Amino acid sequence: MAVGLTDLPTLYPVSGVALGVACAGFKSPDRRDLVVMALAEGTRCAAVFTRNAFCAAPVVVARRHLSAAAPRYLLVNTGNANAGTGEQGIAAALAGCDLVAEHTGCRRQEVVPFSTGVIGEPLPLQPFRDSLPMALSALSEDAWAEAAHGIMTTDTAPKGASLRTSIHGETVTVTGIAKGAGMIRPDMATMLAFIATDAAVAPDLLQRCLVEAVDASFNRITVDGDTSTNDACVLVATGKSGCPPMTGSDDAGYQALCGAVRAVCETLAQLIVRDGEGATKFITIEVQGGRSEQECRCAAYTIAQSPLVKTAFFGSDPNWGRILAALGRADLPDLDIERVSVHINGVCIVRNGARAADYTEEQGVAAMRAEDISLCIQLDRGRYNSRVWTCDLSYEYVRINTVYRS
Amino acid sequence: MAVGLTDLPTLYPVSGVALGVACAGFKSPDRRDLVVMALAEGTRCAAVFTRNAFCAAPVVVARRHLSAAAPRYLLVNTGNANAGTGEQGIAAALAGCDLVAEHTGCRRQEVVPFSTGVIGEPLPLQPFRDSLPMALSALSEDAWAEAAHGIMTTDTAPKGASLRTSIHGETVTVTGIAKGAGMIRPDMATMLAFIATDAAVAPDLLQRCLVEAVDASFNRITVDGDTSTNDACVLVATGKSGCPPMTGSDDAGYQALCGAVRAVCETLAQLIVRDGEGATKFITIEVQGGRSEQECRCAAYTIAQSPLVKTAFFGSDPNWGRILAALGRADLPDLDIERVSVHINGVCIVRNGARAADYTEEQGVAAMRAEDISLCIQLDRGRYNSRVWTCDLSYEYVRINTVYRS
Repeated sequence: MAVGLTDLPTLYPVSGVALGVACAGFKSPDRRDLVVMALAEGTRCAAVFTRNAFCAAPVVVARRHLSAAAPRYLLVNTGNANAGTGEQGIAAALAGCDLVAEHTGCRRQEVVPFSTGVIGEPLPLQPFRDSLPMALSALSEDAWAEAAHGIMTTDTAPKGASLRTSIHGETVTVTGIAKGAGMIRPDMATMLAFIATDAAVAPDLLQRCLVEAVDASFNRITVDGDTSTNDACVLVATGKSGCPPMTGSDDAGYQALCGAVRAVCETLAQLIVRDGEGATKFITIEVQGGRSEQECRCAAYTIAQSPLVKTAFFGSDPNWGRILAALGRADLPDLDIERVSVHINGVCIVRNGARAADYTEEQGVAAMRAEDISLCIQLDRGRYNSRVWTCDLSYEYVRINTVYRS
Repeated sequence: MAVGLTDLPTLYPVSGVALGVACAGFKSPDRRDLVVMALAEGTRCAAVFTRNAFCAAPVVVARRHLSAAAPRYLLVNTGNANAGTGEQGIAAALAGCDLVAEHTGCRRQEVVPFSTGVIGEPLPLQPFRDSLPMALSALSEDAWAEAAHGIMTTDTAPKGASLRTSIHGETVTVTGIAKGAGMIRPDMATMLAFIATDAAVAPDLLQRCLVEAVDASFNRITVDGDTSTNDACVLVATGKSGCPPMTGSDDAGYQALCGAVRAVCETLAQLIVRDGEGATKFITIEVQGGRSEQECRCAAYTIAQSPLVKTAFFGSDPNWGRILAALGRADLPDLDIERVSVHINGVCIVRNGARAADYTEEQGVAAMRAEDISLCIQLDRGRYNSRVWTCDLSYEYVRINTVYRS
């Protein structure tokens, strides 16, 4: 199931980034599950990874390699997360990098590995040996859509976003792909995202651009509150656009680039929620009028992750009591429920902490029937806001996660 | 659905506590939904209430009345929570107390109201008017089982526990009933519990006895992480046993009483989880070897509330990666996953943060098929432990909470 997912849009090539995909058979034989991205010399790379203490072997190796060298290849496999695999897992991640290095002549540290899939199974090397040549020979700047397919696991559709903008008179492209449908929560999740631009950006600025974009996008979504061991989001900048290098954060071109990266990340993040496991509704939760952004975000997440709120959305039940009850346990100091109002798709359901006088159940049910729902909570105690995106909790979520491995 | 629920055991009467039940029609006509408990003069009362900022009108009134007078009547209705009802809800709760006062000659402040059920609907007074005389005329010390039925909402079975113990040569009885199946989490939930003893205990000692018992029982359970607006747990002591009054916390008799109250609360708490909405497994999660009880409890709750862990239990899938991933996001400082081991019903599944060398999937599946599951996580970084009880997440949970109001 998925909510309002559209076909993959045009994904503009990014000069300096070539992608190659193969069916390596990590989990099933005819599935595209191996993706290589080749980066032109001089490409800068920024990355953020899962904050889960239980992080997978490829995350350990990726961090190590990124701090040692500028990457030339990103190596992604699905079907096996290489997580919970101990020293053997580290060795397997390194062996994958070594295979790329052998074939291409680069150094091991110039290859950055990413894995996603089942946790706790040893990562087999034979699929890399068998299929890397095919992926490398397929390398093309026009293969973003192929790559979007190649990184999918429980996703029902590939996810990509792309835009072009003019900076200092030159066309700059930002293109990204992502995967993820369950185990989704802020601070990354079972989520991989690869975003590329042909702008020229200094490494520290590029990292700042990514962190800010991730904070406004991937760190504002939740499907089930679970985070994963493998999450990563990478932003590469090849510098091939012809646009002059961006050197300062006050550079108007840098700000335009940040806006474009953020827009691509927001689209990708929303696509992940729309494809949330079992999702039948896409819900934007906005908490307004808080004393800090932090408390607004905390309240929004507590509501977004409440199983009772999520099942009420699944049932199109305007059960505002559950919304207030979730808000009430979000630990906001001195929260006065009697100041709170709640709107669902513009219908005022709660005013002053109780059912709005002019509200009728029919209005609520009609509002809740929509596939795209905006839930707006006004706390009326400050000037800060925050917004998160989530989906409902359905039978299908339970089914997917009950039978996942069998 | 429910896991290993047994028939209601013998509930011994408590001298000085009489119970009366009626079908008042708050939600459906022929359901027992009104319970009155009459307390002998001189009865002491301790209570704890929900910490949810969105607390119901009866909770506000109950707190107020308990601080003003020693209660003579507890008045419980189901089918309507009288929550999210504003000033009108306070007036309705008070009106219910007034009706009891009129019929019995006590003062309004000597009546303590409790409500549970749907949030946000006005509490009707006619059912009280119509049925209070019947409930009062039925008052009997032998009606604990009737009352256990009378406080049920989505519960599939009544919940009670009772024991007798000898203190200073006198038989002392502790009997309790509880309701609750969803919206369950620590710090109370959609949970009501009424425990009575015929011991004689000073009010401050009685409160301390209750708080300690609740902390070890009702505050260690979770069904879905949601807390409610109406939760309350009451302990009354009538002093009718003939046992001398307990005046100090070092009194051996007081300690024996605390042990008995705690045992009754633990049984009731476990019954609530066994009757958790949609539950097919009863799971005890014990986290050992932590640096503090607090971090062990936090880890246990994070695992207990992970939808991915809960669905894996539902599917009898020994998906230990999900357990480690949940542990990994519990924010334990400097957690070293490589020291962690995991046992399920005695089977060692994870050792040193990776699959145990001698573990086979068959062992794991066999262990996970049991209805009662003990999940033990050893952190190997300290000497503290904590334990919580939870259940799995099934289709039935989604069904119950999707159709609840329709």
